[in-house]
Amino acid sequence: MEDVQNRAPEVALDIDRVGVRGLRLPLRVRDRAGGSQTTVASADLGVELPSARKGTHMSRLVEALEDWDEGLDRHSVERLLESVRRRLDARRAWVRFAFPYFVRKNAPARGDAAPLAYDCAVTSELDDSGQVFILDLAVPVMTVCPCSKAISREGAHSQRALVRIRARISGFVWLEELIELAEAAGSSAVYTLLKREDEKFVTEQAFARPAFVEDVVRATASALEGHPRVTGFTVEVESMESIHNHNAFARIERDPGP
Amino acid sequence: MEDVQNRAPEVALDIDRVGVRGLRLPLRVRDRAGGSQTTVASADLGVELPSARKGTHMSRLVEALEDWDEGLDRHSVERLLESVRRRLDARRAWVRFAFPYFVRKNAPARGDAAPLAYDCAVTSELDDSGQVFILDLAVPVMTVCPCSKAISREGAHSQRALVRIRARISGFVWLEELIELAEAAGSSAVYTLLKREDEKFVTEQAFARPAFVEDVVRATASALEGHPRVTGFTVEVESMESIHNHNAFARIERDPGP
Amino acid sequence: MEDVQNRAPEVALDIDRVGVRGLRLPLRVRDRAGGSQTTVASADLGVELPSARKGTHMSRLVEALEDWDEGLDRHSVERLLESVRRRLDARRAWVRFAFPYFVRKNAPARGDAAPLAYDCAVTSELDDSGQVFILDLAVPVMTVCPCSKAISREGAHSQRALVRIRARISGFVWLEELIELAEAAGSSAVYTLLKREDEKFVTEQAFARPAFVEDVVRATASALEGHPRVTGFTVEVESMESIHNHNAFARIERDPGP
Amino acid sequence: MEDVQNRAPEVALDIDRVGVRGLRLPLRVRDRAGGSQTTVASADLGVELPSARKGTHMSRLVEALEDWDEGLDRHSVERLLESVRRRLDARRAWVRFAFPYFVRKNAPARGDAAPLAYDCAVTSELDDSGQVFILDLAVPVMTVCPCSKAISREGAHSQRALVRIRARISGFVWLEELIELAEAAGSSAVYTLLKREDEKFVTEQAFARPAFVEDVVRATASALEGHPRVTGFTVEVESMESIHNHNAFARIERDPGP
Repeated sequence: MEDVQNRAPEVALDIDRVGVRGLRLPLRVRDRAGGSQTTVASADLGVELPSARKGTHMSRLVEALEDWDEGLDRHSVERLLESVRRRLDARRAWVRFAFPYFVRKNAPARGDAAPLAYDCAVTSELDDSGQVFILDLAVPVMTVCPCSKAISREGAHSQRALVRIRARISGFVWLEELIELAEAAGSSAVYTLLKREDEKFVTEQAFARPAFVEDVVRATASALEGHPRVTGFTVEVESMESIHNHNAFARIERDPGP
Repeated sequence: MEDVQNRAPEVALDIDRVGVRGLRLPLRVRDRAGGSQTTVASADLGVELPSARKGTHMSRLVEALEDWDEGLDRHSVERLLESVRRRLDARRAWVRFAFPYFVRKNAPARGDAAPLAYDCAVTSELDDSGQVFILDLAVPVMTVCPCSKAISREGAHSQRALVRIRARISGFVWLEELIELAEAAGSSAVYTLLKREDEKFVTEQAFARPAFVEDVVRATASALEGHPRVTGFTVEVESMESIHNHNAFARIERDPGP
Repeated sequence: MEDVQNRAPEVALDIDRVGVRGLRLPLRVRDRAGGSQTTVASADLGVELPSARKGTHMSRLVEALEDWDEGLDRHSVERLLESVRRRLDARRAWVRFAFPYFVRKNAPARGDAAPLAYDCAVTSELDDSGQVFILDLAVPVMTVCPCSKAISREGAHSQRALVRIRARISGFVWLEELIELAEAAGSSAVYTLLKREDEKFVTEQAFARPAFVEDVVRATASALEGHPRVTGFTVEVESMESIHNHNAFARIERDPGP
Repeated sequence: MEDVQNRAPEVALDIDRVGVRGLRLPLRVRDRAGGSQTTVASADLGVELPSARKGTHMSRLVEALEDWDEGLDRHSVERLLESVRRRLDARRAWVRFAFPYFVRKNAPARGDAAPLAYDCAVTSELDDSGQVFILDLAVPVMTVCPCSKAISREGAHSQRALVRIRARISGFVWLEELIELAEAAGSSAVYTLLKREDEKFVTEQAFARPAFVEDVVRATASALEGHPRVTGFTVEVESMESIHNHNAFARIERDPGP
């Protein structure tokens, strides 16, 4: 059968990235508490394609994923990308795994534990100049509005907000480290299992630490600036304002890379 | 050219509904304040298909929509469905238009106006026994947690919640009527444009009227039971709890129909 | 601390269902090939609430889930719902787990295996009259248009379509059984890993079996009618028509239940 | 009442962008065929915030939108951003409007017209160095697989694909210009209303012009490179492969800007 992909293309342009998207698979991820956890990922995987080739061989990307029987970490991802470069004779390979990551969190007063899901992603690119490794996280927090609190006789509006971090990493960083610095930046962390004593604790703590999206994005950015293995980042905070049907957001970028 | 749709099917089963889905189009909708407004809808349109026919003629559904040059109301929808029945020789026709509906809302203290979008849908079915006409609305409100307020020294968690109404209608009902009864059931309505005096007002009003999802669903259901032209309904309230990463919901059904 | 939930409500209406929604957790599911697989679920869990009580105790729902350390099947779900009824003193309890379910599929010509994710859900309700148990599946297939094929000199448009099954189950049914009958109803199954020989096979098989959404929904419904442990169902087929920017759909209901 | 936003922040970092997101509103857009059309947009609007200020005044952003009573084009957006800079005393302002844009398309054989919705966005940023103006479009097309066609005795798999263009613009460009060059790059355009003669035409034309995602992205990129008022772009093509449950994609970037 003809290898149509090896024909010459009609338009001779390099393609930055070509591959498969949204391929779902079970995935093991390193986990600070338990060593590893099994979750489910949506994978995007691709290569650079030079101007002389009409098409890439998509099935080899799927074979590379299928043969890659490792838990997800920086080094295993590097091996996956090496295998992709070799199988497809590509100068550069790229992958993104998006997955929920579970942390068992203890309620702040009674201490009961239950899992909380954080939407995370690992993105990595490899060529002869080395490996880029990026972590994405969406960390839910609670925010209490400082303005509403200051001007109202009683109460203040609060809401769930998402702290979205995109961090370029050198060396090794636990997802939990980034989760914790985002949670520390909100009025309170959120929890899966709260009994009444815990709900009282969370409410009072949150009202003692009111924070605008501006405050949360700055505190998170400041913590990321101080992290020795974060070499660049974007932080965006988006709060589902309880007094509006739209959201508020704030964003700080510091050398976020490609 | 052969009319393949008119062949006999391999499996002779009646099909309850067959047609097109997700066809987007501009749409005029009747509007209590301004007479009418232009919005954008996603339309689903279909017919019953008897067991003797292999396929329906999808393009005639699109032609019926295209020739239907009317604003959306109960009677214009009936004419659309009549036209569909005639063009496709169908016993029963069915349509659903989903669209954002805009209401200019005045802030509660200063009175400044700005639009708020409510996700709505009109669903209707027509056969020889008559027309079914259903309104769907998702009305955002604010809720303040009564438990959190009662047990905490200060504050109470609040959040945005959605009141989803599905109401079978006899006669004519403004979307605004259903919006207003849902908004009255929450701790507060939400607004697009709030200056400081308004934010103070909303916060204080909401904290004076704490409400669980259970309270909101009951108040909405009770108001719908009292509405003379609502002949059946489902109400569901879902609140994006600010202390959790999951939601709370409550649901009451009263003869919601097909 | 006061148990605010036990106050009398302002509006004394029974609530059909109240609880938590979108709580994500790792989940083990029975699996025909491997005994069990670990996946990730989004859980909704609730109870009926009588008119005399202001609120339910949401944290007990989370505790019931947290203490339920079992793989998902009909009997373990019954035990979860019994535990919920007991903890919340409820007449009726209800749960829904939505999760991707992975089946390793062999390519049709060369036989290489790779996982394919099917979006599934288990819904169950329990009261004194017994347990309702419902399976939902979304099975992707390929469809080739019979009309396009009959009228064109060459080719025919094809597309990915989803066969959505909702089946009430008595006794035990593997998810794989329902997947297989949906895949058999399309022009071809879809696969994750196809080499050239496989792509040729799939293309030729699909073009030898053109099918409208009407054909697919009828073949699936007919197979479900013949299944001894399916006591009612809805089937809906939706195809992402490659010649349009909207979809085609067809739907058959047979005693689908609550 | 205190202006809490004017307090000094705890962490003195500049914020790149802070504002409102997901605010929906009716919007008039310039339209090559009809002068203008009314559609519905989701707006994000924000400003840079210097390190000395704790918070921005979100309500002034909403007021600026509310007072901006113009159809959407490059110059009206510049006036909106000027007004935002002035009202919030900001060095830089930024806006994004996302909206469906309707084009009435004539079927290729019989010529019947019906609207097709394209998801578009206008993004613009303004500071003392001038205005950046970016158009985003998602253009659906049909692709027929060249490999499947070459190796199969009969047929070839086809599918709907999206051509996503992000183009930095100098001067004036109609959305229709970018739509047309994307549609010309696929195996065929897609249509809302196709009678049998049209379906035959589209099928035969598409099978005469098979195209990988690589071919489509290169043809689109080449056309954008030749456009005199496109100063940089990203093109991404994603096809919903009818033989898989995942997608294929290809991406070319040329100086896409911020």
